[in-house]
Amino acid sequence: MQQQADKKMKIGSKSTGVADRNTPLLRNYWYVAAFSDEITREPMRRTILEEDIVFYRTQDGTAVAVQNRCPHRSFPLHTGTIKGDRIVCGYHGIEFNPDGSCGLVPALNAAPRSIRLDAYPLVEDGPFLWIWMGDPANPDYSRMIYQDWCTSPGWTHVKGYMYMKANYLGLHENLMDLSHFAFLHAKWNIARPEHAAAPSKIEEDGNMIRQREIHEDADLPPAFVEAAALKAPMNREAQHLVQIPGMHVGTQITTDASEPPKRDVQHVIHIMTPETQTSTHYLWAIAYDEAVDTEELREGMRTVGEGAFMEDKVALEDIEEIVARDHRPNFREKIIKTDEGGIRVLRMFARMAAEEQEEAAVAAE
Amino acid sequence: MQQQADKKMKIGSKSTGVADRNTPLLRNYWYVAAFSDEITREPMRRTILEEDIVFYRTQDGTAVAVQNRCPHRSFPLHTGTIKGDRIVCGYHGIEFNPDGSCGLVPALNAAPRSIRLDAYPLVEDGPFLWIWMGDPANPDYSRMIYQDWCTSPGWTHVKGYMYMKANYLGLHENLMDLSHFAFLHAKWNIARPEHAAAPSKIEEDGNMIRQREIHEDADLPPAFVEAAALKAPMNREAQHLVQIPGMHVGTQITTDASEPPKRDVQHVIHIMTPETQTSTHYLWAIAYDEAVDTEELREGMRTVGEGAFMEDKVALEDIEEIVARDHRPNFREKIIKTDEGGIRVLRMFARMAAEEQEEAAVAAE
Amino acid sequence: MQQQADKKMKIGSKSTGVADRNTPLLRNYWYVAAFSDEITREPMRRTILEEDIVFYRTQDGTAVAVQNRCPHRSFPLHTGTIKGDRIVCGYHGIEFNPDGSCGLVPALNAAPRSIRLDAYPLVEDGPFLWIWMGDPANPDYSRMIYQDWCTSPGWTHVKGYMYMKANYLGLHENLMDLSHFAFLHAKWNIARPEHAAAPSKIEEDGNMIRQREIHEDADLPPAFVEAAALKAPMNREAQHLVQIPGMHVGTQITTDASEPPKRDVQHVIHIMTPETQTSTHYLWAIAYDEAVDTEELREGMRTVGEGAFMEDKVALEDIEEIVARDHRPNFREKIIKTDEGGIRVLRMFARMAAEEQEEAAVAAE
Repeated sequence: MQQQADKKMKIGSKSTGVADRNTPLLRNYWYVAAFSDEITREPMRRTILEEDIVFYRTQDGTAVAVQNRCPHRSFPLHTGTIKGDRIVCGYHGIEFNPDGSCGLVPALNAAPRSIRLDAYPLVEDGPFLWIWMGDPANPDYSRMIYQDWCTSPGWTHVKGYMYMKANYLGLHENLMDLSHFAFLHAKWNIARPEHAAAPSKIEEDGNMIRQREIHEDADLPPAFVEAAALKAPMNREAQHLVQIPGMHVGTQITTDASEPPKRDVQHVIHIMTPETQTSTHYLWAIAYDEAVDTEELREGMRTVGEGAFMEDKVALEDIEEIVARDHRPNFREKIIKTDEGGIRVLRMFARMAAEEQEEAAVAAE
Repeated sequence: MQQQADKKMKIGSKSTGVADRNTPLLRNYWYVAAFSDEITREPMRRTILEEDIVFYRTQDGTAVAVQNRCPHRSFPLHTGTIKGDRIVCGYHGIEFNPDGSCGLVPALNAAPRSIRLDAYPLVEDGPFLWIWMGDPANPDYSRMIYQDWCTSPGWTHVKGYMYMKANYLGLHENLMDLSHFAFLHAKWNIARPEHAAAPSKIEEDGNMIRQREIHEDADLPPAFVEAAALKAPMNREAQHLVQIPGMHVGTQITTDASEPPKRDVQHVIHIMTPETQTSTHYLWAIAYDEAVDTEELREGMRTVGEGAFMEDKVALEDIEEIVARDHRPNFREKIIKTDEGGIRVLRMFARMAAEEQEEAAVAAE
Repeated sequence: MQQQADKKMKIGSKSTGVADRNTPLLRNYWYVAAFSDEITREPMRRTILEEDIVFYRTQDGTAVAVQNRCPHRSFPLHTGTIKGDRIVCGYHGIEFNPDGSCGLVPALNAAPRSIRLDAYPLVEDGPFLWIWMGDPANPDYSRMIYQDWCTSPGWTHVKGYMYMKANYLGLHENLMDLSHFAFLHAKWNIARPEHAAAPSKIEEDGNMIRQREIHEDADLPPAFVEAAALKAPMNREAQHLVQIPGMHVGTQITTDASEPPKRDVQHVIHIMTPETQTSTHYLWAIAYDEAVDTEELREGMRTVGEGAFMEDKVALEDIEEIVARDHRPNFREKIIKTDEGGIRVLRMFARMAAEEQEEAAVAAE
């Protein structure tokens, strides 16, 4: 029986009730499966929560996600072809409809009902394609966290994908914590050592955790400062919002020294979709004011985004590797004050996982 | 205790009593270890049924197969040398005779009886070298399925070897089933979609399964049609014969539209020798009428053989990979009518495996 | 409960009480972690006994070894930087002193006592840096086997490092046994087949085993014979000394045919520091008379050293591979007379391991 999340975790002590790399992946949530523009008329494979899935679009452009494993002989469907709205297995030519039902078994010249694929509920949402990984018959749309404003008038964005050989939880911890900016991301010159101690304000409400920090006299990428015509010194307020296992929305509000002060808002959307317990699809988008957009700013955004997030990815992969390599008896990670936001997120996920186990146990009775 | 093979398997339902990738490899049978011409005076290593074996020929040309692991310090013998009829370990110079007995331990200047190699009974048979993987003291020659006619007058053959990272059983299923020809092997233009539904006749008798199918108006490789001077439309009768775990003999009988009809026979011998539960030595030979042989036909045979069998190999490796990757709860492969031959073979092997376990249990008492 | 070492091992029979690849690695001993000159002001990572360790030197040149895993978020410290005498984590900038205590957590602007690294006792000893892998609070200096004479007046040495993907015990066996010289090292022409049978004299006293063998009319590397102006025929006495799990000291005493005979002494120090149960850091040094040193001899020493030890390394890796590959029921390695020294060493280690387990059990009470 899984332990209840311990409400009385003491900062600096051994943690309990905190999700870790052994916590079962959470199923009854929406995850971003891909950027919408990754899904075309060509089959595309991606493994999510240890299920192998094939994506494509029908003739009218509707996205489809079905199991990437023919129920007949386990052949991967992504190596097959798209025929009209159907995906055709490359081994025996079995055809499947977008809802997973069989369209044709050539050898039977029939379409038995017993031959079918799991089909996954999807939601297209701005640049993102979301997938429901729980019971396909009961997608819970109240759990969607829409990000469609990303492609609304007034906003533009840059984005990228990285494959990360590490558990997704480390990325959640990383993102709740700005104290690593001056060290891990030192070369981008976006935070100073003294910012490491900036205090955090944390709110928690059900499955929502929001954290806020202020970096005074913040250094910002010169391309951005120039494009937005900001005047130093500037303050940066960082907001962090986590509501589901697969997404962290960061918001950076910059206020400059102009009279009256200029205010610039950026959203940095981090997507961490677990592939397995030890690998993650890391998708990111930085959404910002279209009015300040220039080719140079855009390039700068992309460079800093890809550059800094790559540093996080490499750091988390290094940690994953050392956990496998270093067998040090009685080692326990220590928690410091700046970890509070991350630990609260991990504690929330541990509680969600316990709830999911209970629901599954009830359903199995 | 292993389940008895279920005689009442229902097509389309969950199968039981059917060998799968977890079924223990069958030991008390002859397997093709190599093509005869692979074995020379140079030691050659091959792992079969998870036993590492070294092969070579004595001075008079007799093939030898002994364990590829010195009983002294586990050094691989294939890195050593052949000295007369003996194989000499490269570590301490210990010499072994073809029967596995020790010829010399240089450090003792003696040949202790306790130092010996497992030696494997072998049979040379046309292009094939067979090995007995059961008790070496009791090879059961009644279980040999000779293929020596391959090199008899009137016959010629082409052949090839592929290493397949997949369990051997998938290849048995694949070969009993012509319904994949029009799809997986589409580019070779050797079957039409409507052939997928061609009915099969299956006979079963003890450890023998024979299946027959007819493809009417069959497409055959143009090089072959030309060489054999066949006249369309042609019918192709395919026969499939399985009697042991490591071989499937396919026979293709083509009848053309000449008056009287010309009849051409080819044998396609598929050898699947398990290396481990997840890897297989796949050797094949296509034997055909020497009278129609030309350089062009020979090239065509080789191209289609290597090409189509490579497609099978890749498909089976893709399946092996997806089985490891896709953790989809409650997934069970579905069976359709054209799988009957393959399923019968897997059921026969499950029964053989159960018998082998029982024999081993009796022997251990 | 671990079996007591069996004092009555019969040569040629199944061995018991002998350390093998499954015996727990021995902790309460000194191991050579590195050559001293490998440790600089740049952090250097090495995993020893499955603990990942980072090495560097302080400003005054003192060597430091601390756990290569930040206690905060498991980040590898070797990717960080050295700042004065401290090592600084690259993730959140946490600073650690050479004794493992925390110097600064920037986010706290404090140095909590609970945040600390394991620090390893070290001894610099001639060309070697030794590390104590037992309880860091109680290094047992009586267990050090100093080799500082290597860098004393009158002596010079060549040395090298090899990473070996094999358990360290095979190297101990290999080194107690000269009977493989004429075979595995045949190309170096340093022993003749008849030397394989040279008898050994073995002394054992507590944790010390010394073995001696004489090769009469020995072949020696020509560069060495020339440099030392030796006159054939020569006799070589080989001494082997093992006192701890991580070192084998070989001594070769050559006596030539001059009147009076010239006597030349070389020490060949073999270091086998286990990384894991299946991988080993293999460091070697050949120490010899400075008086005979020439550039040519030095090159010859290095060539033969690297060449022959590489052959041993490859042989032991081949054995490790075959043990994983070959699943031959009831296989047991056989012991011959020339293995006695090696078997005694493995038996001594088995006894040490049993003692260590008993001590650990007592300590845990």
